[in-house]
Amino acid sequence: MKKIGIADTTFARYDMYESVVDELSKTGTGFEIERYTVPGIKDLAIACQKLINSGCDMIMALGMPGAEPIDKQCADQASKALLYVELKHDTHIIEVFVHEDEAEEGLADLADKRAREHALNAYDLLFRPERLEEKAGQGEREGHPDVGPLR
Amino acid sequence: MKKIGIADTTFARYDMYESVVDELSKTGTGFEIERYTVPGIKDLAIACQKLINSGCDMIMALGMPGAEPIDKQCADQASKALLYVELKHDTHIIEVFVHEDEAEEGLADLADKRAREHALNAYDLLFRPERLEEKAGQGEREGHPDVGPLR
Amino acid sequence: MKKIGIADTTFARYDMYESVVDELSKTGTGFEIERYTVPGIKDLAIACQKLINSGCDMIMALGMPGAEPIDKQCADQASKALLYVELKHDTHIIEVFVHEDEAEEGLADLADKRAREHALNAYDLLFRPERLEEKAGQGEREGHPDVGPLR
Amino acid sequence: MKKIGIADTTFARYDMYESVVDELSKTGTGFEIERYTVPGIKDLAIACQKLINSGCDMIMALGMPGAEPIDKQCADQASKALLYVELKHDTHIIEVFVHEDEAEEGLADLADKRAREHALNAYDLLFRPERLEEKAGQGEREGHPDVGPLR
Amino acid sequence: MKKIGIADTTFARYDMYESVVDELSKTGTGFEIERYTVPGIKDLAIACQKLINSGCDMIMALGMPGAEPIDKQCADQASKALLYVELKHDTHIIEVFVHEDEAEEGLADLADKRAREHALNAYDLLFRPERLEEKAGQGEREGHPDVGPLR
Repeated sequence: MKKIGIADTTFARYDMYESVVDELSKTGTGFEIERYTVPGIKDLAIACQKLINSGCDMIMALGMPGAEPIDKQCADQASKALLYVELKHDTHIIEVFVHEDEAEEGLADLADKRAREHALNAYDLLFRPERLEEKAGQGEREGHPDVGPLR
Repeated sequence: MKKIGIADTTFARYDMYESVVDELSKTGTGFEIERYTVPGIKDLAIACQKLINSGCDMIMALGMPGAEPIDKQCADQASKALLYVELKHDTHIIEVFVHEDEAEEGLADLADKRAREHALNAYDLLFRPERLEEKAGQGEREGHPDVGPLR
Repeated sequence: MKKIGIADTTFARYDMYESVVDELSKTGTGFEIERYTVPGIKDLAIACQKLINSGCDMIMALGMPGAEPIDKQCADQASKALLYVELKHDTHIIEVFVHEDEAEEGLADLADKRAREHALNAYDLLFRPERLEEKAGQGEREGHPDVGPLR
Repeated sequence: MKKIGIADTTFARYDMYESVVDELSKTGTGFEIERYTVPGIKDLAIACQKLINSGCDMIMALGMPGAEPIDKQCADQASKALLYVELKHDTHIIEVFVHEDEAEEGLADLADKRAREHALNAYDLLFRPERLEEKAGQGEREGHPDVGPLR
Repeated sequence: MKKIGIADTTFARYDMYESVVDELSKTGTGFEIERYTVPGIKDLAIACQKLINSGCDMIMALGMPGAEPIDKQCADQASKALLYVELKHDTHIIEVFVHEDEAEEGLADLADKRAREHALNAYDLLFRPERLEEKAGQGEREGHPDVGPLR
């Protein structure tokens, strides 16, 4: 039995946790889920670390950075901290960030879709990494349509 | 009995420490407070580390970065250092930064409100994390009005 | 027998892994190859770390960052994480990044050529470092034509 | 007896070390001073580390970054390295940077004044931290006139 | 007998290694030199680390970043990694970077001169640090004419 940790925020405007849990439950079994909710994206890194220390084998970090320059700076800080935790604990953290200025409309759909497609990535990394190898260099995109390989 | 550490600066133009202490005292009990004041936001990280080494279970870092590009760069450095301390010691540090160019007027009110709302976040993380989970994905904002969930 | 680890992504639009393997096999012997495929460039660092922990003596990290500002930011985060892993484990990681906006057309050719020329660099670092010393200060470029020395 | 370490550069165009030593000697006793001079601001971090390893209890890092974009980038790198050393050794490092484009004229006066006011901060942190607490949120500025509290 | 390590790249368009060795040999004795050549500036940090692990007491890192924004980003990553290695091993690394857009013409002369002047800095740090102290705050520049002190 593996444990998947999910960190999310009260700042986000869409409950991506529900999308992830729904997608994971449709995809397979053999895992349980632990959740840790924090105020904002800068708090995600320590939430992930606490989930790892609690025994999680795979982490997903869900956040929705705002559209202002300061928000971009915060997202950069948050991403770097997530990478640090990931490498310190040698545990994958799948960053699922949806930027508020990524879509004029349909942001909720984008968040739902990206969360689901990254849930599949998390599942693949944990249970069937050969699936990712088959798609190497194929121009996969999460949330948006795949662009496919060049040529 | 938990201990909440509060780091603040002489550079800031509003005493957010008072707002935090007032809000925490209205919210609950079971904690004591320790303060560490430094000159500027770049000194907050080591102040937080010293508070953690002094036995604090939860930290709040209060700062007011200036409006110039160099101030933004300093704030970025300070935030990254706060994240580093947080992860090194596995202790939450709630960053409460109010940027001098965030509001034409009403900056003092913004600082007061943000400090209070983050004091509640600190309290929730420490004593009742289920409250944060209930608000996950709900578009909470600290200092400004909540924007609510999409759709 | 040395082991060369190759990390790549499903986000990339060209299978640089094939170019690297083909070039290495034409260049020499004395090595085996291990592959680790991840979703995007931010996942490359932990993939490299897992390859190193699996016994690799030399790593190549293959990625194709997008053309948007946020993609540049992600590439920066990914590069810094690769450097961190490299230094933490004292093992060379050759970063082979092809930016989507580097060429109007011919991006696939560029990716193929860069991957092959960096495969040679990896081979040289591992088996014949004197070759690199001979080319020091000679204006070598990977993927694009060499520019040669000044004067 | 405490030891205050002072790191400075040959790149700077004003000898802030003299200002610091003069101000400290006017302020109090109970300390000795150790100096370490390096070529540029990027060398300050290791100079500070060597001063700490030599027994210093408090560090001041004096530098004058240039006015070009590349200088700003170097200053950013230097500041981050100073923060890293500070946190690694849990020893305050007061960064005293004067940017060449901060003032049209009067740069020497600014450097002298900033060095002196930060010397007081260093002294306060070491010997009388309650003085900083009294000035928390009061809009203190080093080198420029204090702006005072909001409202 | 001290050992000075020199890391350089095949990407650079001038052989600064020769300038450094020539200048050091004119300046004094009591040292031997070890060289490590890598493809690009991002590989310099691990080259420096390997030189330090090989017993070097002082390191020089020679590189020539390109003129594009992505090159600036790479130089920033490389510099930060050099700082990390320097502080991790408590060994000076003198960064000698010549940016391709620093001079319209005369780039080779600039590279030669900067390499030589930083070779002197390395020598001074290793054998006669009092020389640097004498020049503190004197507006020294490496490669370009010294600007001298303010006032």
